Amino acid sequence: MKIAIFGGDGFVGWPTTLHLSDQGHEVHVLDNLSRRWIDAELGVQSLTPMDSIQERCRIWHDVTGRRIQFHLLDLAKEYERVKAWLGDVKPDVVIHFAEQRAAPYSMKTDRHKVYTVDNNIGATHNLLAALVETDIDAHVIHLGTMGVYGYSSVGAAIPEGYLDVKVQTLDGSMADQAILYPTKPGSVYHMTKSLDQILFQFYAQNDRLRITDLHQGIVWGTHTEQTRRHEQLINRFDYDGDYGTVLNRFLIQAAIGYPLTVHGTGGQTRAFIHIQDSVRCIELAMADAPKAGDRVRIFNQMTETHRVRDLAAMISRLTGAEVLNLPNPRKEAPENDLIVRNAQFLALGLNPTTLADGLLEEVVEVAKKYSYRIDRSRMPAVSAWTRDLADKVEHDPEAKKLRAV
Amino acid sequence: MKIAIFGGDGFVGWPTTLHLSDQGHEVHVLDNLSRRWIDAELGVQSLTPMDSIQERCRIWHDVTGRRIQFHLLDLAKEYERVKAWLGDVKPDVVIHFAEQRAAPYSMKTDRHKVYTVDNNIGATHNLLAALVETDIDAHVIHLGTMGVYGYSSVGAAIPEGYLDVKVQTLDGSMADQAILYPTKPGSVYHMTKSLDQILFQFYAQNDRLRITDLHQGIVWGTHTEQTRRHEQLINRFDYDGDYGTVLNRFLIQAAIGYPLTVHGTGGQTRAFIHIQDSVRCIELAMADAPKAGDRVRIFNQMTETHRVRDLAAMISRLTGAEVLNLPNPRKEAPENDLIVRNAQFLALGLNPTTLADGLLEEVVEVAKKYSYRIDRSRMPAVSAWTRDLADKVEHDPEAKKLRAV
Ligand SMILES: NC(=O)c1ccc[n+]([C@@H]2O[C@H](COP(=O)([O-])OP(=O)(O)OC[C@H]3O[C@@H](n4cnc5c(N)ncnc54)[C@H](O)[C@@H]3O)[C@@H](O)[C@H]2O)c1
Ligand SMILES: NC(=O)c1ccc[n+]([C@@H]2O[C@H](COP(=O)([O-])OP(=O)(O)OC[C@H]3O[C@@H](n4cnc5c(N)ncnc54)[C@H](O)[C@@H]3O)[C@@H](O)[C@H]2O)c1
Repeated sequence: MKIAIFGGDGFVGWPTTLHLSDQGHEVHVLDNLSRRWIDAELGVQSLTPMDSIQERCRIWHDVTGRRIQFHLLDLAKEYERVKAWLGDVKPDVVIHFAEQRAAPYSMKTDRHKVYTVDNNIGATHNLLAALVETDIDAHVIHLGTMGVYGYSSVGAAIPEGYLDVKVQTLDGSMADQAILYPTKPGSVYHMTKSLDQILFQFYAQNDRLRITDLHQGIVWGTHTEQTRRHEQLINRFDYDGDYGTVLNRFLIQAAIGYPLTVHGTGGQTRAFIHIQDSVRCIELAMADAPKAGDRVRIFNQMTETHRVRDLAAMISRLTGAEVLNLPNPRKEAPENDLIVRNAQFLALGLNPTTLADGLLEEVVEVAKKYSYRIDRSRMPAVSAWTRDLADKVEHDPEAKKLRAV
Repeated sequence: MKIAIFGGDGFVGWPTTLHLSDQGHEVHVLDNLSRRWIDAELGVQSLTPMDSIQERCRIWHDVTGRRIQFHLLDLAKEYERVKAWLGDVKPDVVIHFAEQRAAPYSMKTDRHKVYTVDNNIGATHNLLAALVETDIDAHVIHLGTMGVYGYSSVGAAIPEGYLDVKVQTLDGSMADQAILYPTKPGSVYHMTKSLDQILFQFYAQNDRLRITDLHQGIVWGTHTEQTRRHEQLINRFDYDGDYGTVLNRFLIQAAIGYPLTVHGTGGQTRAFIHIQDSVRCIELAMADAPKAGDRVRIFNQMTETHRVRDLAAMISRLTGAEVLNLPNPRKEAPENDLIVRNAQFLALGLNPTTLADGLLEEVVEVAKKYSYRIDRSRMPAVSAWTRDLADKVEHDPEAKKLRAV
């Protein structure tokens, strides 16, 4: 198949690109390299030394004889070029990773809020409008997040996309209706994913676009089968306060003797998935495309849930690292339960890699190997959800001590 | 009070501006005049001769001694200027009309889809981000639409914003939860209003912004008490296939001996409100501001519902005009019922002006008076929701005959 991967230079995009190329598909990466620019803006870098996308594609060709084509393209800002490219290449599948994906970055300043909304909504809507215009019947696979639902609801188990409700009809009787499970996003980033969901609903309904939306948990780990094949095929690994996600940050903190920084009580329960499973899920979703006229297919793409303080305790046991509670820069429920249904991927054959499978040690190894590259000053989470929370973080004595290190 | 009216040069914005200025408020109009540019793009013009906004403000001053200040500003594209202006002036109330508001225009071509999303989401999000950043505790009043809910649901009475649902909690018991009434927008324009709703929910929750969202029905009529005071204060009046709304179009068609063009069977039921009531509702909403931390206050701003074919029949009886059924360029349910709750405005003292109140004749008078300005070739609705529908409209013999006139 001919596959277009928007955002294929990113953390999930790159291993997905390799995985699908490895299976013999014709793979195109379309990326504006904005994440590399954001690294520069924040003065951070991937823990793992990451070559240019062009160089990585060249090495993949050396190693496997397969070609990945790279196109520098801004999905949000270059509508006409996107349309022309799609019209020329006519992909069978379009995988859409091309969004600003860090909640803390999206809350950093007003400029970052505006950028995140413009970029993410522009990217998604341009893609949908261009597919309609070029009349290409590609299967669109988008990466959403579990976070759209917020974590402070009454705590119902999170279904896969839709909720059956009873509503009163005009004649007074009750009727069943399936609605999009209501969203209550907790950051500007999560909000953009909640908007995306409505864009998908509309284009599936009006234009019969075939769309799968993967509501993904927090991705951990770094290697996949393909990225392991050559030192320079290595995946990016973020650990800074904006882009580093909780489990990967704990593992790095443990590896360099930094305390495991838990926000608030650590009572937040979150959903997780290993990068290898994330890539596999995309393959499974591809194989099970909706038909024209179907409603948007929504999968929960996660394999297990954990409470943050339990994760910290587990990694502390494993590595001897100390746990440190800091004020939470996020506005969120301090404690929540979370049960997520993921029956669809299990039914399609996903065989989850869990934290228990020994890969935690592998990540600690990676972190140790490259620890000479770590900039400890980039570790603290400084982007706060409101002014009050920013003040709390700034004046907290423990946080101050840590920043002074 | 100090009131900022974004989009104050438009059809609802202008009479609102006059109404609030008349009450002694300090009123500022902020508008990028994009609607005047769109008139030029489409080669259409308001039926009523509409002076420049600067001239209209000058005349208002002559007539009443009151000043309205006009600022040329693009809310979607000039974030920094919006922020600076808000920070300087510190309005108590911000009324937000500044969006591309025609469903047919939003479906015209891919360019129009992209413009509508960029403009409307950019405008709303910029406003919210700038209010947070400047720390201004203004009451935001936004104009949404009844159309966000779609018209093809099971037909429950449309509540004011929220729906109480029962969800199963983790311990198996059922709990009540209030959710935003699920939206199912039927055009790109309506979709943007559905996105707005989620932006509001987020900023009310995260930043305690005080927001009222008015889900308005289709506005009809043209004069208000203030626009009547001087020939050159007259309000705009759209009748073309993109911006003209159904009731106003029927009235104009009747006045010039053009058939009343009904799309499909005319079985669509829609909600309506007279322009005078629309303006009055905004005043009522202003007087009843939410407190910081409240959820978004949502009102249904409409006074009556009618089936399109019944409206056509009524106007035909009144004027003798012929009714003509044409293929529907919109993708929508051919027939729907609609019951809308509007208890909140009635409780605040709204005394509805209905179609029965004789104002229909007034609109016919206006249409007759300016009928020499009507360009009949702009009457047909040509923007279609999909390629198939465009073909149907193009090849329909009746529609062809009409276009040939
Ligand atoms: N990493 C996670 O834990 C996680 C969890 C849930 C969902 N997701 C989602 O998965 C997707 C990929 O995440 P990731 O971790 O790989 O992020 P990433 O930041 O590593 O990759 C995103 C890629 O998209 C590109 N991009 C952004 N805007 C673009 C634009 N306008 N035009 C072209 N390219 C653009 C960036 O340059 C980058 O290469 C995102 O949509 C994210 O929201 C990720
Ligand atoms: N007219 C109706 O029947 C109706 C029904 C329901 C809801 N509404 C809503 O009420 C609001 C006003 O509608 P209207 O009929 O007066 O529309 P309109 O097109 O007459 O007025 C909109 C005004 O906003 C301005 N504008 C648009 N984008 C802008 C931007 N980025 N920056 C600054 N100004 C901008 C335009 O120049 C115009 O003057 C809209 O939000 C519309 O969706 C209208």
